[in-house]
Amino acid sequence: MALVVQKFGGTSVADAERIRNVARIITDTYEAGNSVVVVLSAQGDTTDDLIAKAEELNPKAGKREMDMLLSTGEQISIALCAMTIEGMGYPVVSLTGWQAGMQTNSAYGNARIKRIETERIRVELDQKRIVIVAGFQGINKYGDVTTLGRGGSDTSAVALAAELRADLCQIYTDVDGVYTADPRKVAGAKKLDEITYDEMLELATLGAQVLHNRSVEMAKRYGVNLEVVSSFSGKPGTKVKEVVTTVEKSHVSGVARDKNIARLALVGLADEPGIAFKVFSLLAKERVNVDIILQSIGRGDTKDISFTVTKSDMEQARKVLEEHKAAIGFDHIDVTDNIAKVSIVGAGMINNPGVAANMFEALFAAGINIHMISTSEIKVSVLVDVVDADRAVQVVHEKFFSEA
Amino acid sequence: MALVVQKFGGTSVADAERIRNVARIITDTYEAGNSVVVVLSAQGDTTDDLIAKAEELNPKAGKREMDMLLSTGEQISIALCAMTIEGMGYPVVSLTGWQAGMQTNSAYGNARIKRIETERIRVELDQKRIVIVAGFQGINKYGDVTTLGRGGSDTSAVALAAELRADLCQIYTDVDGVYTADPRKVAGAKKLDEITYDEMLELATLGAQVLHNRSVEMAKRYGVNLEVVSSFSGKPGTKVKEVVTTVEKSHVSGVARDKNIARLALVGLADEPGIAFKVFSLLAKERVNVDIILQSIGRGDTKDISFTVTKSDMEQARKVLEEHKAAIGFDHIDVTDNIAKVSIVGAGMINNPGVAANMFEALFAAGINIHMISTSEIKVSVLVDVVDADRAVQVVHEKFFSEA
Repeated sequence: MALVVQKFGGTSVADAERIRNVARIITDTYEAGNSVVVVLSAQGDTTDDLIAKAEELNPKAGKREMDMLLSTGEQISIALCAMTIEGMGYPVVSLTGWQAGMQTNSAYGNARIKRIETERIRVELDQKRIVIVAGFQGINKYGDVTTLGRGGSDTSAVALAAELRADLCQIYTDVDGVYTADPRKVAGAKKLDEITYDEMLELATLGAQVLHNRSVEMAKRYGVNLEVVSSFSGKPGTKVKEVVTTVEKSHVSGVARDKNIARLALVGLADEPGIAFKVFSLLAKERVNVDIILQSIGRGDTKDISFTVTKSDMEQARKVLEEHKAAIGFDHIDVTDNIAKVSIVGAGMINNPGVAANMFEALFAAGINIHMISTSEIKVSVLVDVVDADRAVQVVHEKFFSEA
Repeated sequence: MALVVQKFGGTSVADAERIRNVARIITDTYEAGNSVVVVLSAQGDTTDDLIAKAEELNPKAGKREMDMLLSTGEQISIALCAMTIEGMGYPVVSLTGWQAGMQTNSAYGNARIKRIETERIRVELDQKRIVIVAGFQGINKYGDVTTLGRGGSDTSAVALAAELRADLCQIYTDVDGVYTADPRKVAGAKKLDEITYDEMLELATLGAQVLHNRSVEMAKRYGVNLEVVSSFSGKPGTKVKEVVTTVEKSHVSGVARDKNIARLALVGLADEPGIAFKVFSLLAKERVNVDIILQSIGRGDTKDISFTVTKSDMEQARKVLEEHKAAIGFDHIDVTDNIAKVSIVGAGMINNPGVAANMFEALFAAGINIHMISTSEIKVSVLVDVVDADRAVQVVHEKFFSEA
C-alpha cells in the first residue's frame, strides 16, 4: 500500500462540479488501496474576493490580519471537499494548516515551513481516513495563522510528502503536464514524460508556471517523487525526479519565454574593482532580485553593466541607483522593458557543446536580434525584443523538437 | 479603567460601511480608557451562502465538516474589523475561537462552552490591544473546530465577560433595546431602561428575539452586567441585571407574541395516574420541546391533555403519539397551528394579583377568545386564535402601558 499526496489548485475546486470531479480522483486513488493525503487551494476567485474586501477597509492592512482573512479560503475548500467525499460514503476528515501541524516562521504573507508535526495526520491515516489538508497556510510559534505566499499550496503538498515519506506527490493542475514549450502558444509543443528537478527549476523560473520554484527545490532536497498531472484529462502527466531514465532524443527538454522582465544598463562606469559589488549589494538591500548580469569588457577607462529584473522592480532599481549615482560613479542609466527572455533548458546540454550554437542559428535564420546571452550548465537564455519573443520561441522549438 | 465586552451581530458588520461604524464604536470605547474585547458574528448572509454551497455538494453533510465550513464566516469578520481598526491607528489583534481559548464539548453544530483559557486574551489586553474574537465558535478536546448553534455569538460574548470578570457586556444589535412590545408592530411600545434577567429570559423565550436565552441564562448565573444597545442609533440601550433599581410605573415590563406554535390535544384519556408521565416522556425521548401543558379535570372516567410545541415539532409529536395510541389509550388527537401565544412578563407581577385579571379584561373587552392560560411567577401567557394575535398584543399593551 502506497502513501500518495495529491494537491489540487484553485481552478480544480472552483465550483461544485469540479469539486465532485476532484472527489472522484481522490476516492479512486483510495479505492486502489492507497493512503491518501490531499492538499487544496482556495476556490477559484475566493482569494481575490477576500483581498478586495480588505482593500476597501484598509489598503495597507497588516499581514497578520491578511493571513487571518485569506486562510479562510482554503478552509472553505477542505470542508466542501470533505463533505462531498463523506456523501460518497468514504471516511474522511478535513484539517486546517494548524490542525495538520504545519509549523512556520512568522513571516506573515510569505512564511516558511519550519517543521510539520504529523501526529494528527498519522492518527487519521491509521484510521483509514482520507485526509484533506488546507494548503498555503500554517501556524507560527505564537499560535497565529500564517500563509506561505505564492505557490504556497504546492509547497504544503511537497513538504507533507517529504515529512510523511510519501511514495508519490501528485500536483493536479489544469494542464496535462510539463511541455517542451507553452502548448497554447507554440505549435508542435510536446508533453514530457519525465524531467529532472533541475530542469523543472529552470523552467519554473523561466515562466513555465506549472510548478512553483519553492516546491520543486523542496522536492529536490528531500527526494520527493513529483508528478504534474491534469485534473481534467485523466491522462498520465509528467514525472519530476532526480535522474531521468528515458533516452531523450533531444538534449533540450523545453523552451520557455518570460515577458515580465526589464533591463537596466549602467553606462560609463569607472573600470575599477568593487563597482559590481557596490551596485548589486545596493539592490540586494532593497530586495530587488537580479536575474541576468552582463558586464562589458572595459573600453579605455570605463565599462558598462547591464542586468535584468522583473518589471515590478524596475522603477525601484532605477531609483536606488540614481540616488547613489555619485557613490557608484556612472554616466547614465539606460532602462527598457521592451524585451523578453527566451530560454532552452536541458540536463543533457552540458555534454553537448553544439546546443547553444543551434539556438543562435535558429534565431539568426529568423532574423531575430539577440541583446544579451546568459548560460548555465542546463540553460541558455537570450534577451530579444518583445515583439520577436513568440516567434523566437517557435523557431527555437522547431530547431530542437522538429529535427529530433 | 473598565473592561468592556462588546458583541456585534451579522447585520452590524454586513458591509464595509457598517464595519467602519462598528470600528468607530469600538475605538470610542477604547479612547474612553477602557480595555475592550469584541465578539463578532459572520457578515450578513455569509453563513447562508456557505450552507447553500454545502447543500449543493452534500445535503446531509456531517456536522464536524459543517462547523469547519461555517466557522470561516466569523474569521472573515474579525480579520476585516481588525484591519479597519488598524487603519484608524489603534493597536488591535483578531483571534479565532480556538486562539481565544473557547473550549467546548464535542456536540458539533450545537456545542457548549466548557471553559475559556483566557491567557492569550489577557496577554493582548496587557499590551493595550483591542481584542477582536470570532463568536459562535470554539475548539473541542480533539483540536477540532465546533460551533455553538443559534445565538452562539451572544453566548460567546457573555461567557467571555463572565470569565474575564468584565464590568459590562454590551450586545449591539439593530434595535435600540428591549421594548414593552415589538415596536414595529405595537403602537405605543416603549423602550425599557432596565429589565431583570428573569424577565429577559421570559421575553426571549416568548419570541422577543433581542437576546438568545442561553446568553441570558449565563449572564444571570455569573452576574454579568448586560446591555442591549443599537449599533446605529447611538442612544442608551436597555440594561439587563439581577435587580432593577428604577421605580417602574407598571408591574409589567413587556408584552410578547409567538406565532410559531401548535397545540395538540389528546382527547378521551383514561383518568388514571401515570398518563401524563407516559405522554411527556415519549415526547422527551423524541426531543420534542413542550411548552404550555393543560390537563382538564376528569369528567367521568376520561380526561383531556392539551399542550403546545413549536410548529416544526408538530408533525413529529403527532406521529409518535399516534404510534403509541394503544399504550397511552386515548380516543383521538386534535391538532391545530392556527393559534398564537400572547404573554405579559414582569418581575413585579408576583406581588400584584390583579395583573392577570387586567390582561383578561383587556382581551374580553376586545372580544378575543382565550383557549388556554398558563401562569408563572413573572409571566402570564394565553393562547388565542392566530387572527386575533396582533390585536391582542395591542390591547394588552394599551391596558398596561397607556394607563400607567
